[in-house]
Parts: sequence; C-alpha cells; structure tokens
Amino acid sequence: MKALAVDLGGTHVAYGIVDDRTLLFHATFDSAEAKDLRSVLDTLEKEFRRSQERFGACVGVAMGLPCIVDTSTNRVLSALQKYEDALQIDLSDWCRSRLGLELRIENDARMALLGERYAGAGRGEDNLVMMTLGTGIGTAALLHGRLLRGTHFHAACLGGHLTVNFDGPLCRCGNVGCAESYASGWALPNIAATWHGFECSSLAAVPSIGFFDLFAHAKAGDAVAVQIRDHCLKIWSATAVSLIHAYDPTALILGGGVMGSAEEIVPVIQDYVDRHVWSSWGKPQVRAAELGNSAALLGAIPLLKEENCAPIELR
Amino acid sequence: MKALAVDLGGTHVAYGIVDDRTLLFHATFDSAEAKDLRSVLDTLEKEFRRSQERFGACVGVAMGLPCIVDTSTNRVLSALQKYEDALQIDLSDWCRSRLGLELRIENDARMALLGERYAGAGRGEDNLVMMTLGTGIGTAALLHGRLLRGTHFHAACLGGHLTVNFDGPLCRCGNVGCAESYASGWALPNIAATWHGFECSSLAAVPSIGFFDLFAHAKAGDAVAVQIRDHCLKIWSATAVSLIHAYDPTALILGGGVMGSAEEIVPVIQDYVDRHVWSSWGKPQVRAAELGNSAALLGAIPLLKEENCAPIELR
Repeated sequence: MKALAVDLGGTHVAYGIVDDRTLLFHATFDSAEAKDLRSVLDTLEKEFRRSQERFGACVGVAMGLPCIVDTSTNRVLSALQKYEDALQIDLSDWCRSRLGLELRIENDARMALLGERYAGAGRGEDNLVMMTLGTGIGTAALLHGRLLRGTHFHAACLGGHLTVNFDGPLCRCGNVGCAESYASGWALPNIAATWHGFECSSLAAVPSIGFFDLFAHAKAGDAVAVQIRDHCLKIWSATAVSLIHAYDPTALILGGGVMGSAEEIVPVIQDYVDRHVWSSWGKPQVRAAELGNSAALLGAIPLLKEENCAPIELR
Repeated sequence: MKALAVDLGGTHVAYGIVDDRTLLFHATFDSAEAKDLRSVLDTLEKEFRRSQERFGACVGVAMGLPCIVDTSTNRVLSALQKYEDALQIDLSDWCRSRLGLELRIENDARMALLGERYAGAGRGEDNLVMMTLGTGIGTAALLHGRLLRGTHFHAACLGGHLTVNFDGPLCRCGNVGCAESYASGWALPNIAATWHGFECSSLAAVPSIGFFDLFAHAKAGDAVAVQIRDHCLKIWSATAVSLIHAYDPTALILGGGVMGSAEEIVPVIQDYVDRHVWSSWGKPQVRAAELGNSAALLGAIPLLKEENCAPIELR
C-alpha cells in the first residue's frame, strides 16, 4: 500500500512515497521563502507528479503539520505561524482536485508517534508516549493502540506546555513556566545568553546556539555548556515523569535532532524515570526514536488506515 | 436501579443506598481504629444487611478506594496505606459470598467524577477533568464519555503528582516538586510551620492546620494565612492548566472539603485558566463540585452500568 507522505515544517517541507513500512523515496524542499501555504502546495503538487511517474499509484496523502488540526474535517485549528492562509484552505478539496487523492492530516508529533510505532522504536506496543525535542517540544500519546486526541484535538500534544515551574517565566503559549520555555530550541539562545558565566563560555562565540552546539561544547568540556545541557536534561526528565504519570505508557520514545546525542540523553532520563516515576507495576522504558526525520512520513500508512481500526477499548 | 455504594477512606467509610441519581440513605462509620480491611468489610456487611431490609434489593455494589485498582479484575494494585491485607483479599468473592451481589471497584477520585457527571456539576458533558483537593490531590479525566484509565490503571489519577517545580522537594510518591507536596492536606502543616513569619501568625496557635483553618484565618485577615492560601491557589491553578493541557476537557470540576470556600477558589482558578490555558476554541469552565462527600457514592450506578456502554470512540 503506497501513499504520499508530507511533513510540513516551518522552513522545510519533507515529502516521500511510503510503501507500508518502507520509505521508497524522500526529499525536502525549502519553504523558508514561501509567502503562503498555497505556494507550498503548488510546489508539492509538482514534486508529487514527478514521483508518481516513478513509483506508481498511491492510495492517499497523509500530511503532518506543526499545529492543532481537526482530523475529522481536515481543518487547521490553530495558526500555522508563517502560513496565515492555512485556516482558509480546504486541504481535502485541494488534494482531491489537484492530486485526485484522499487526504488525512494530523499534528506532526502525533504522526511521528504513529510512524515510530509502525516501523520504529514502538513496534508492537499499544501504550506509548513520544516527546520530540526540537524548536519546540512536541508530544503525543497512544493508549490501547489509538492516538489520544481529545475533544478539541489538544490532548497529549501540549506536553511541552505542562508547567515545570509555577514561578517561572511566561511562555510564548501564554502559560507560566512551561518546559518549552526552559529547554527547547527556540528558548535555548536566550537561556544561554542569560546563564551565569556565559561570557566566559566557548558558546559565547556561537552565533545562534542550537542543541547540536550545546552538546558538542559540553562534550568538549566547556563548564557552562555542561551546566546548560544538564539543566535541559533535568527539564526533559521532569516532563517525562509528568507525561508518564499523565498517560501511563509502557515506553517513552524520545525524538528530534538532538537525539544525535542519544547516548548522553536516554540513560540520564531513564535513570530519572526509574528514580521518580510512581508505579504499581514497574518503570516505563525510555528509548531513542529510530526513524529520525522520517518518523512522521512513516506514520502515513497507519494514519490513512486508521478509520478501519476498531475504536479504542478503554477498560 | 438500586445499588450499595461504598467510599472507603483512611479514617472513615461512607456507604449508602443509591437509586439512580438519588441517595436514599447514607452513613459513615469510623475506620480509624480498624486493624485491617477484613474487619472493615465485616462492619460493612452488618451495616448493609440492615439497610437492605429498609430499602430492598440492590443490583450490585460499587466501591471507591483511595488507591490504584484494576477494574477488570477488581484487584487493588497499590498498597492501601493502613490496610496491608488489601492486596490479598478477593473483593469480588467477598461480595458474592457475603452479600450475594456483583462488585465493581474503582479509584475514589474517578468514582467521584462519575458521580458529578451523573448527578452533579458535570451532567450532560463528555469531556471533563476533576480535581479533588483533600489530604491528597485526587484527579480523574473523562474523554468522550469514558473514564481514562490507562493500561496499568494509572492514567489521569496521578494529577497531584505532576511536577510543578523541577527544583522542588521530594514528594512522598518519589517524584520531585509534585503539586501535592506544595498544596495538599498532608503537606499543609509543614508548609505553614516553615513559612516565613509563621510564629507571628494566628495559625501558630492551631494544633494541626487544615484547609478549613487556613481559609478561616485568611478571611479573618491574618497576613501569613493569606500568603499560604494564595500559594495554594497558585499551585492548584498551575495544576489545573497542566491537566487541561493534558486532557482537553470542556470543564474542570473542583471537589474536596476545601470547596466550602468555593467562592474564594473557583473565580481565582477560572481567572488563571482564562489567562494561561492555550486553546484553539475557548477556555474550559472551572466549577465547584455539587455533590460534596456524596460524589463517589453517586458514581455507583454509572460504574455498575459501564460495561454496557459503547467503548470510547476516539477521533
């Protein structure tokens, strides 16, 4: 079963043709200069026609978006930062009329969890939480084999906006002391710049600090980088425990570009989980995602197939 | 449809006969001196026989317990503090052999939410979170009309053990900086005793400070009591936002003895929710529970009927 999979990011659009658990082909194009979603869709259409010639017919299109989406109507519910026209576009209609295919859209973190469960670190498990550490902190939960979405489609994807400090700063989401405002890609440059001793750190020479820089400088022994890295690990660990307490999974999957340093992250968070999760049965496993940037793309088939699944059976 | 409803607490056992949404009769007996659960069950049996004579046949027994329970097997999964024999007792067997009735057990906070939804502040709504402020902080979530339980029955009932301060003290659950360790009945005496200026507060004369004392002394104008009250309101508010972000309800119901001061609590938490919840649709309503100590008892009928309901339909 083949499908077109799309992962629509702020600066890049990843797309590919998946055949069940195999990514036959994938590519990205730059969307940083795109003025609106309409122009991105035009590019996507051209790219898809070319891949379709090579790979044959697809059963549908699955698209991940970095926002809240109504999966029952395929409508974007929250503003897609740079794409102001997103709320006005009928994506289903675009897909049918331009590509001749049915569409399913989903929040990108949820689609990544579907992918990791279908073809990666969560294979064969029905109760999972995933936390994707990137520009923001994306989260998703699967219970009894089904995505937890909630009545307004907010459930489980705001895990980066659980409060980790009730006396903390205002997050850009409007809440107080969110995990994202303490340990995310967007918050990192400011966290570093205001860290005690930053002016003496090797990080001070880095133009726009990302997690790659942070982990590299910490590994090289820079004391401030070590402190900030450990601070981030503590925030992610505290959030991991809250997510486990909230959703009761058997495993927590960690994704995002920072997992290039998985060996410095997974054991630390696993140790914190082992020490601090309350449990009547044991402690959930903490695992690195296996599919990297392709996780959301590989969620395409389970997303498209989802309507055929039995509804969740809560006990 | 009549049932025997039981709410098994640490120092008191409440029980009653419910007829759908009506509590025909209820009473409590002291269990503070009880050595084990077996002796409590013996008392309950005697009490029930007497009520049965007055109210006629019951269809079953629904029992709320302050712990994690496996609702599929009617087994207690976590230690019930003073009742060390709880994990060894086959409650279903006790109920069948001694009362001739089928039993359903549930966590007490979940049963209270079922009650408030059936006969109280949550009538007619399918997506609710409840937070019961007492000795601990009990929480429960209803999604698409069904209780969220999770694969090990932990989901949604550990809301008092979401971290509100990643640098906070160790909670008695083992986690760091839980809401319960900042603003619960068990934590309050210690919070007060270590509060700056406590020795000059009118609270210093109170032998074992509870929320009733705290709200009364704050109302009377004691400055330290006002500060501690406002601190508790802040912790409950932060937890309310995290629970709303986690479960996406249309309303949050607040219960527990402290809701005798509902007019000083509900508007404060509603205001915090309005300012700090991220939402694509609007802000959930914050409401006082309506059933007081009877909430869990009135959850009996929906709990006993639950098996006949359709499983949750997640979108």
